[in-house]
Amino acid sequence: MALKRKPAVGGKKAGRGAGSARTAAGPAASRPRARKAASKPRARPAPPKPTVEELLRKADQPAKDSLRLHEFYRGVWEVVPKACIRSFDDFAIWYTPGVAATCKDIQANPEKVLRATNKWNTVAVVTDGTRILGLGNIGPEAGMPVMEGKALLFKYLGGVDAVPLCLDCHTTDEIVTAVKWLQPSFNGVNLEDIEKPKCFEILDRLRREARIPIWHDDQQGTAAVTIAGWINAQKIVGKKRDQVRIALIGAGASNINICRMMIAAGADPLKICLVDTKGILNKSRTDVRELEPVKWHFANITNGEQRSGGAAEAMEGADVCVALSSPGPGKIKPEWVRKMAKDAILFACANPIPEIWPWEAKDAGARIVATGRSDFPNQVNNSLGFPGIFRGTLDVMATTITDEMCIAAAEELARTQADKGMDEEHLIPTMDDWEVFPREAVAVGLKAIEQGIARRKADHDTLFAEAATIIRRARKQVQVLQEKGVIRRPPGNS
Amino acid sequence: MALKRKPAVGGKKAGRGAGSARTAAGPAASRPRARKAASKPRARPAPPKPTVEELLRKADQPAKDSLRLHEFYRGVWEVVPKACIRSFDDFAIWYTPGVAATCKDIQANPEKVLRATNKWNTVAVVTDGTRILGLGNIGPEAGMPVMEGKALLFKYLGGVDAVPLCLDCHTTDEIVTAVKWLQPSFNGVNLEDIEKPKCFEILDRLRREARIPIWHDDQQGTAAVTIAGWINAQKIVGKKRDQVRIALIGAGASNINICRMMIAAGADPLKICLVDTKGILNKSRTDVRELEPVKWHFANITNGEQRSGGAAEAMEGADVCVALSSPGPGKIKPEWVRKMAKDAILFACANPIPEIWPWEAKDAGARIVATGRSDFPNQVNNSLGFPGIFRGTLDVMATTITDEMCIAAAEELARTQADKGMDEEHLIPTMDDWEVFPREAVAVGLKAIEQGIARRKADHDTLFAEAATIIRRARKQVQVLQEKGVIRRPPGNS
Repeated sequence: MALKRKPAVGGKKAGRGAGSARTAAGPAASRPRARKAASKPRARPAPPKPTVEELLRKADQPAKDSLRLHEFYRGVWEVVPKACIRSFDDFAIWYTPGVAATCKDIQANPEKVLRATNKWNTVAVVTDGTRILGLGNIGPEAGMPVMEGKALLFKYLGGVDAVPLCLDCHTTDEIVTAVKWLQPSFNGVNLEDIEKPKCFEILDRLRREARIPIWHDDQQGTAAVTIAGWINAQKIVGKKRDQVRIALIGAGASNINICRMMIAAGADPLKICLVDTKGILNKSRTDVRELEPVKWHFANITNGEQRSGGAAEAMEGADVCVALSSPGPGKIKPEWVRKMAKDAILFACANPIPEIWPWEAKDAGARIVATGRSDFPNQVNNSLGFPGIFRGTLDVMATTITDEMCIAAAEELARTQADKGMDEEHLIPTMDDWEVFPREAVAVGLKAIEQGIARRKADHDTLFAEAATIIRRARKQVQVLQEKGVIRRPPGNS
Repeated sequence: MALKRKPAVGGKKAGRGAGSARTAAGPAASRPRARKAASKPRARPAPPKPTVEELLRKADQPAKDSLRLHEFYRGVWEVVPKACIRSFDDFAIWYTPGVAATCKDIQANPEKVLRATNKWNTVAVVTDGTRILGLGNIGPEAGMPVMEGKALLFKYLGGVDAVPLCLDCHTTDEIVTAVKWLQPSFNGVNLEDIEKPKCFEILDRLRREARIPIWHDDQQGTAAVTIAGWINAQKIVGKKRDQVRIALIGAGASNINICRMMIAAGADPLKICLVDTKGILNKSRTDVRELEPVKWHFANITNGEQRSGGAAEAMEGADVCVALSSPGPGKIKPEWVRKMAKDAILFACANPIPEIWPWEAKDAGARIVATGRSDFPNQVNNSLGFPGIFRGTLDVMATTITDEMCIAAAEELARTQADKGMDEEHLIPTMDDWEVFPREAVAVGLKAIEQGIARRKADHDTLFAEAATIIRRARKQVQVLQEKGVIRRPPGNS
């Protein structure tokens, strides 16, 4: 059993968490399927093939540690002074009377708020708690641990100061209003775990109405990282982006955005089939016309053949399949994979269990398989995206994050892996490739400058040096605080 | 010239800042007055008596440093991880998949949000930018430096994680709504620099409608520290609280609260005269009946003699005068002080220049003089209040901050100085007496427990040890980050 020792570090979609693993993989029906697949002979070298029991045991450890250690630390982020405190005299600079001069300076020169306060580097991580991970509407308080964890990742990976803001309001208007009211203190907003369909309208409205960049990680973030994997997969199999047939299984926030960005990145919309729980979207799907205008839009611009049916029909002859539907196994059947085109590319990204086990997909002929899990090759992990994308956005003081900036990040993410050497099992980098983040930041920043939405211009080398310095400092900060015992080691031997 | 070397470290009311000093003390008229006073012979040992020019030069340095160093650091607070990051594997605990278990735990046991996230220790510093220091309505962005500075003080002095939130909304309803929406992430709110009269209604409504403690530092904070000074001053002159005549000059947020808390702490309302810009409040002041109900309330319960007139008339025969009006000098005349009772106590707390210079007040017979400045004895400094008061409130998980808790803080602040030895020039501690903060925290926490509004009970020693540990850790954190160069030393030789 060649399981990697690293436990699953999920991206957004890894979010169903260890807890739900018990439920998701609980049904006895799924176990014989996994065992049966495991006993089948195969031609190529054995991929890791853990049993469901092993996966669950493994998946359970982070959950146990989480319960124990969240209470030990009582939260995972905190506020610290960033300016020197040499003596109490310095308070006269940071507070009254000296601070008044800086206030008046900003009043006279409003753009200085990005130079003289921490607004330039501060992002709000905003949720209303209606779709926390795969746990559903558990409320804003129960969503706090996820937003805090995201703040920790923002800082450690991207050097971004992120503040968890769980809102006790739930309509589209209220959330849009709250975010707009909060703008003076923040230079960006990461919307997180807000249920659909309101998440679409909230993002769209805020991208139009807000003065600062607005991002919904479940939409743009998952899309950016998936697109990166897709770009490299296409290179490996030697197919062109505009010539492949694509099946997108699941029409949630992520796949809707993946669809839009794939088109923006060169895919032919007529060759894409988008499948929701009721089947393939096509022009006869009038059920979505009134209630889900976003889906109706795609029903009209995709699916040139006007296919109908479900995932099986969408996958027939497809070169690429991206599934972001519901936890497997057994949600995508091997016989559907068998009917895909030669050198099929399959992203099965439901968590904690992919729609189909990677070894089943490979047995059925898929050449490249990616999942949301860190214990299989090719993890599609949101944490590869948002820290670097925000770093770049903040560094050039961009006023928004465009799809083109996301695609630039995806291309750079793909290029980073290509530079290191890529193959069927190494499509995209992992979180511990630290250069991922400054490289993405530069790509995003340069794209913003090119698009004329950056309030600051700088060249490649300057942007890289700055991003690298900020990220290195964030990591050193944690290291120093740990070494000096300000961040204590956890009790026990874990 | 025996000026203390420590530059002015203002409390809230020190807020008019160095910048406005130029304006406030600019008029030529004020200089001859200061010089004249300086040349007068006096009996008691010379108090510090700087010239206006010296004071302005001195006051200007923090402003210069502020402009330079805010841009050097680009803000004075930041977010850091508080939990260990031993390797990338730990992200599986702090984020997906492990974090889901903590979310579900909070969903099942809502009170756990205070044990498993940083909500327990997090306070929002909220302003709409309408009354930033003495600068007026300069807008929420220009208010950021003050809110950031407050966050720095909150952490360094009280170990509290404070987040600056400058809101782009301005009506009472909007600000109340915004704060209520933000409650899931915060365990307290510090309202700051919101203009009157709406600040009164906002505080009152939120204290009724919010589930978390709400504090307006300009109201309760200034009052708590002033009351502490008053308590010790009364002891020094040997007068009882319920027997003194009190003149309160200025009827802004601070003095209105000082009036209420003095009464709650034992003063006789009938012996208090509250003076606004139009004169002493009494039952004939129908001008405030409709528009300023708070003033009308005090017009009815104070001033048993139904005095009329202005500050001069209010001060006649008064044992105590607390002025929080507008920058002096010359706003309170020596002849008014001369007509006060024997052993007069005078708090002249306008900033940057007190309503009357301390030496003038002493020459005119005041026995005890306090100001808002650190370069005279007896600085009434808000920073002595909010960090310890919030520390205590958070530590016992109190649901609100009552006037009784503020008074308990004031009494403890007074006792801390009394324990060290107090006299006319040492009424209250200074910020560098670090035990002030844990002692206040304990007093506040025990009062909350006594009043039945604490969700956690603990004894004196436990509370003291906890508060001391948290505050020591906050200071060590800054020290470590400075030693290791994560917080850089400022450039140049200042």
